[in-house]
This record gives sequence, structure tokens and C-alpha cells, in this order.
Amino acid sequence: MTGRPRVVIIGGGFAGLGVARRLRRVPVDITLVDRRNFHLFQPLLYQVATGGLSPANISAPLRSVLKRQRHTRVILGEAIDVDLPSRRVLLPGETLEYDTLVVATGTTHHYFGHDEWEHLAPGLKSIEDATEMRRRILLAFETAERAHTPEEMRELLTFVVVGGGPTGVELAGAIAEIARDTLHREFRSINPADARILLLEGTDRVLPSYPPNLSHKARRQLEQLGVTVRTGAMVREIHPHQVMIQTHDQSETIATRTVLWAAGVRASPLGRRIAQAAGLTPDRAGRVPVQPDLTVPGYSQVFVIGDLACCLDEQGRPLPGVAPVAIQQAGHVARTIRNRLHNRPTPAFRYRDVGTMATIGRHRAVAVCGPFHLSGYLAWLAWLLIHVINLVEFRDRVFVTLEWAWNYLTWNRGARLITGSPAEIMPGTSAAPVGTGQADRAELASHST
Amino acid sequence: MTGRPRVVIIGGGFAGLGVARRLRRVPVDITLVDRRNFHLFQPLLYQVATGGLSPANISAPLRSVLKRQRHTRVILGEAIDVDLPSRRVLLPGETLEYDTLVVATGTTHHYFGHDEWEHLAPGLKSIEDATEMRRRILLAFETAERAHTPEEMRELLTFVVVGGGPTGVELAGAIAEIARDTLHREFRSINPADARILLLEGTDRVLPSYPPNLSHKARRQLEQLGVTVRTGAMVREIHPHQVMIQTHDQSETIATRTVLWAAGVRASPLGRRIAQAAGLTPDRAGRVPVQPDLTVPGYSQVFVIGDLACCLDEQGRPLPGVAPVAIQQAGHVARTIRNRLHNRPTPAFRYRDVGTMATIGRHRAVAVCGPFHLSGYLAWLAWLLIHVINLVEFRDRVFVTLEWAWNYLTWNRGARLITGSPAEIMPGTSAAPVGTGQADRAELASHST
Repeated sequence: MTGRPRVVIIGGGFAGLGVARRLRRVPVDITLVDRRNFHLFQPLLYQVATGGLSPANISAPLRSVLKRQRHTRVILGEAIDVDLPSRRVLLPGETLEYDTLVVATGTTHHYFGHDEWEHLAPGLKSIEDATEMRRRILLAFETAERAHTPEEMRELLTFVVVGGGPTGVELAGAIAEIARDTLHREFRSINPADARILLLEGTDRVLPSYPPNLSHKARRQLEQLGVTVRTGAMVREIHPHQVMIQTHDQSETIATRTVLWAAGVRASPLGRRIAQAAGLTPDRAGRVPVQPDLTVPGYSQVFVIGDLACCLDEQGRPLPGVAPVAIQQAGHVARTIRNRLHNRPTPAFRYRDVGTMATIGRHRAVAVCGPFHLSGYLAWLAWLLIHVINLVEFRDRVFVTLEWAWNYLTWNRGARLITGSPAEIMPGTSAAPVGTGQADRAELASHST
Repeated sequence: MTGRPRVVIIGGGFAGLGVARRLRRVPVDITLVDRRNFHLFQPLLYQVATGGLSPANISAPLRSVLKRQRHTRVILGEAIDVDLPSRRVLLPGETLEYDTLVVATGTTHHYFGHDEWEHLAPGLKSIEDATEMRRRILLAFETAERAHTPEEMRELLTFVVVGGGPTGVELAGAIAEIARDTLHREFRSINPADARILLLEGTDRVLPSYPPNLSHKARRQLEQLGVTVRTGAMVREIHPHQVMIQTHDQSETIATRTVLWAAGVRASPLGRRIAQAAGLTPDRAGRVPVQPDLTVPGYSQVFVIGDLACCLDEQGRPLPGVAPVAIQQAGHVARTIRNRLHNRPTPAFRYRDVGTMATIGRHRAVAVCGPFHLSGYLAWLAWLLIHVINLVEFRDRVFVTLEWAWNYLTWNRGARLITGSPAEIMPGTSAAPVGTGQADRAELASHST
């Protein structure tokens, strides 16, 4: 209790952690609340899902990042509501009072009204999601090696990625590389390169937010890796052993055991509560509409930034939910807080478009930076460099570079672990999952005919 | 089906994988069965539990290790029984016939008749165990930072390690280093160095299998790190917030939220089934008594090795369950299989004692190698070297060395992630665990008094 202005930040992603770090020399008291004890570098999460990196490689403990900022306190917990009139944040068992509030809790998966698909087609937002995807991808190959029929084998070696945005493109490309290169010569009954990888996209091209010529190039690069791209394809049903899709006026059933969701995200629940409290209507994705200074209308001391905010550009279009937007908004908020301490005005936030990029595989990527459109080797090198530079901790930069160099030279992936509960890590060849206890009770007698 | 002798190996640890690798130039057909898709370097598992290494650093995918051995097939699955007379191994949905069988399924936790302690005091055998321990240790500090009373804080900052063997000593030492060094200056309401770490051992000294002078030195080094060592202490009861122990004729209750189990192991269930089938009595730890050639009495084509075997030395004492024994036994079995192909005899197995070592912390360790007893800096250097050299994959050797070098220079630990289900990763400050869904339904109204 120093009497200095209290800044409460909810969320330790690019936006929230960005604000905290940029306030390091500003005389305020900061409390950063996050549900996790680490900052996660989400753009590389698909590499954890595909065994290229370990979770720790793309994570930075929040306390470690902020340890030198003595005026910053980190709390592990979930903000369950915000009381705007009385300026308080509610956590289970604790209430935080603020003078300035920054809400940046990001997004969660969205299944467009089909929540029952969540366990059939996991999405990719957390470390747990990534290790779950990794488990499903690797286990499909393991189970195929022990398949009893060619149909079962084909079903197991069919991978469906739903959503042709950057995450879907990167996932599909990485699975193709696992099948072709990483697992080469490791199996005896199957040829992993026979795997069929389908990328489904609802619009008429992959990477719909990119210029059309780069969408075209991305598709060609995916096809060179053996990925089948289906555009204009909508998922109608997902079942444990099949997916039903509709392309234009044709419907098709794909036999598969592995469906990965990269199609939709929705603002985290706190967004809707804040919108309601402020009398606003969230946008279609649940995001909070903010003013040009990134505050909530009517509450000039409450900022909403990052993927949770619906912030319009000069043309009145919402800014995309990408890291550069979050990082620039964090800078703007920190500047505003500092200026307000000196009663100085801050000009409205303006996003400076630094471009966007997606990688497809070894030597394959697409990138757009202002008037420059890159694809292939050069885009891939740029992608590597930009992603390493932007990792929060120096340690992560060093180890990601080393892991990548090693993977590049050996065509291998170092983190190919199938982890989970005993029932999850066994191939699905028996009707009931077999754990340790059950194995102990099983009897050979009934099988020895 | 080449008509060559079929060797089935159950278990991909030091023993099982060792046999497979040493048979790489022997004309047999090998099938290696394991429940996991990777070999785990168990001696360093405690470093995953304490955030020093990532799971992938100490794991090697079995397929990757054996990919160049075209006569070796890897199967992910659990052997649930062995039919000795008809020479078959039963897996769910599959039966494997063998000419030679090697069983090396190791050990599992053992709670001495108190299986209900398992979720209160997790043991350390698998990657999942290690990430669970890591979660509990880190979450205790996080929850203490938000504690409401000094009693609650003390309870949260008390760590009890049960069992003073190498695993218990290494765990207690690592937790002390986390509290003193790693978390230094990262908290605002607590001083992590105030943590109380208790190491409980039932016999009269830690590391009871070591020479007494090294036990004494290990204890002194632990105490230098701030660990409280209690010898002659038996655990009577474990509850969510306390442990009751008995030391000689005194009983004591320790208020704690974190109890870690390093006390007992028991042979895996397959051991008992094989012993029963062969008409043998397993030893007290459930291990299978084997002949001097490591075969099961009456079944010269069935070898049991590693931690699962009760193999007597020249003095009639059972060999300890350590990696060097498993590795040497693997070599012996591979030699026997090769010799039998040429109808050559193989001398009985004899364990060549290469010594043993345990690390306690930075610059602190004890080691015994024949007549040489080392402790302190030199033992610590030897420990580092021996452990890096023995990692199975060259990749793991490189990355473990780099991670250690980094941790050594920065006094930090790179893999400090709290992972798990939403209910698990939240501090236990509220009565009910709060997940995403619940947060959405919670109401601030009831709290705003």
C-alpha cells in the first residue's frame, strides 16, 4: 500500500504482459493476474503439438520475467468478474481494487454451437491442448502399426485439420512432415508416408486474410507436401471414426480417427461480462468494442486489449487477433497510463501494420509485409528469425534456435512423447482401455483356445 | 516371418532396450513391447519433477533409437500375461509367439498396504508422475503467496519427502534449491527461502545402501541446504493437510500440503504372474527369483532382468534395482542369445560393481566406486558426467548438458510450468476448484457487500 495508482492487469499474454513490462519504470503498483504461471508464446504452440518443441521452450514463467520489477505482483488465479462502478476485480477468495484496469484474457475455442465436438476435435490454445494433439497424432501411427484390417489402417492414417487459417495451415504442413520425414523407416507394418492429410477450409481459399496470390502459393506448397486441400468445405458432423463434410452441394464422409480443430475462436467469458456491465453489445466473436483510446465506453480507466478487444482500424474494420496488434496495444496502454500521471494527453491508438506470415514446412512459408509478398525459402527464413526474436525470454530464444537447428539437420523431432493417463496412452485396439490395474486382473485362460 | 528365432522383449527400459540394441547384429527377429513410445532415463526424472529439465530431455522415442535395426519391431502396448508352456505373450487384441522371451517391466510405486496414500503423496516413476510433482511443488508456493493466515502459509511452505534413498535425497535437495535460489525475489508476500523441507527416513541414516560415512556426509550437505532430516521416522497417516509420523516412541503431526513419496517400489504385476506360472514364490518386493543365467527356473528360454528380477550375488544377497545392474544383465542376455545360436555355452551372470552415486545440489553429491568414497564438488562433477554419458540419445546428451549449463550459470530452472486440468492448476484458496465454465456462472453480486 504505497498510495501509488494501482494498475490491475488480467491476463499474461502478449497484451497483458506487454503492459506490465512497459510500466517497469512508471511509479504505479501493478498486479498481474493469470490462470497460468507462465506466459505462452502461442504462435509456436503448433510446434509443441507436432513434437518439434517442448512446452518449456515456448513458455516463460511470469514471475521470472517480472522478478526485477519490485512494484509488480503476480497472482495465479482466475478473475471471475469485474465490478466496474466500484472498480474491483473479483477472484475466488480475494478482491482486487484498481485505479486502472487492463483486461486481456484473450480467446478460447469456438465450435459454432457444436460444443460436443470439443473432445472429438481438440483445438489448440493451451499447453495441454498441444500435448493432447501430439498424443492423438502419434498414437494414430502407433495404432495403425497394429491395425487388423486395411480399412482400419487407412482410417488411422487419415488426419483431418478443420480450418485453413495460419494455425490450420501450419498444423497440416507439420503433420505432413512428420509422416514423410520424421517417422521415415521407423515402422515395420505401415509406411507413415501413406498418411492422408486433409485441410478443410470454409471459404474459397486457405489463409483468407492474406493476399490471394499468397493463398494460392500456400496451397501449392501444402500440396507439394502431400496435403489435400478442400476449400468451400463445411463440417456437418464429427463422430469418433468419421467426419461428414459438405462441399458446395455435395456431401462426403471421411473415415478418420484424428480430427484437429483450427477453425474458430471466441472471446473469453470475461469479455461478455464486461460488455454487459458497460451496457455494450459484444461483436459476433464475443469481443468487447473499445474506443479509439482502447478504453471501454463510459469507463476511461478500463482498457480492453489484445484478442479480447474489438478495435476498429481507420476503414472501420476490426483489427485481427494477432500478436503484433496485442503488442502495439500494450505499448499504447502503458504510454497512456504514464501520460495520465502527468496529465498529458495520448493520441488515439493506430495500428501500424507490420505484416503477417505463416510457415508450411521446411523452406516453405508465405509472408506479407506492406507491399512485399514473399513465399518459399526467403519467407521461411524470415519466419524463423521473427519468431525467435519475439520470444520473451532470452533462454527460450537460445533453446528454440538450438532445437530447430537440430531438427533441421537430423530431420527428426525431439519431443515425440505420448503422454497422458494410462487409458489414454494405449492404442485403441481393445474395446476397453487397459490400465495397470486391469492388466493385473486380466486372465490369459480365456484367450488360450 | 523369416524363420529366424523370435525374440520378444517386454519393457523398453535400461534392461529391455539394452537387450534389443545389443542384438542389432544377431540374426534373430525382435519384437519390443512397451506401454510407452519412449525410453525414459529414470535417474534424472527428479529433475523434471523440480523444473530443471523438460520431459523430452530425458526421453528417447523407442522407434527412433531402433529405426536402423530392420529386424526389430516396436509395439506400443501392454503385455497383460505370458503363457509359459505355449510360449506366447498376450496383448489386448494380439498374441505374440516367442522362441526367447525377455521380461523387464520394472517396478511401480508401493505404499505398504496404504494405496489410499497414492493421490495424497504421489511417487516418481513416470513422466506424468514428474509433472504432477512439479505441479504440486510450484502450486504450493503460488498458493502461499495468496494465503490468508500465517498458519496456512506455513502449511503451504512445508514439504515432506518420504524415503531417504537416492530419489528422496535428490528430491529434497532440489526443492531446497528451488526455495533458496530459483524463486529468490520472485514473490512479494512470502519469502520462498522460509520453506521447510523435511526428509523422512525409516532406518537410522539416509542413503542406507551407501557406506555410513557417505550417509553422514549426505545428511550434512542436505542440512547445509536447509533440509531437516528425520531418521528412524515412520509415516503413520497421511491426510490432505497433515502427515502423522512416529519417531522411536514419539509421534508427531506435521501440517503440510505437499507430501512426496520416494519410499517404496514393488515389482510390476507381470512379475507375479510369471512367478505363479513357473511355480515360484516372488520375493518380498514381488520380484521374480532367477537362476544364475538370469532365466526363470524350468524355462531356459525365458529371461527376467532389471528391477523385476531378484538376482543374487555371490554372497547370496539380491542385487539392487539400479541402472548398472539392468545394463549389465542386458549385455549378458544378448550374449547368451547369440551364443545359443552357435550352441556355445555362456558363463553365469556376474555383476561387476561400478559404484553408485547421488546428487544433493549444486556442488554437492556423494559417490562410491569400489574402495573410493567421494563427496562434495568432485562427486558432483562425476555425477554430472556419468549421467550425461549414459543418456541413450546423442541429442539428449547435448540438450541436457546445455540446459544444465544454463541453469548453473543463471541459478534458474527452465521448465517451471504448472500444467494439468483447469481444476488442478488453480491455487486451492477457494473451497471448490474453479474452472472456466464455473467462472462464467459466478456472480459478483453475492460478494459486493
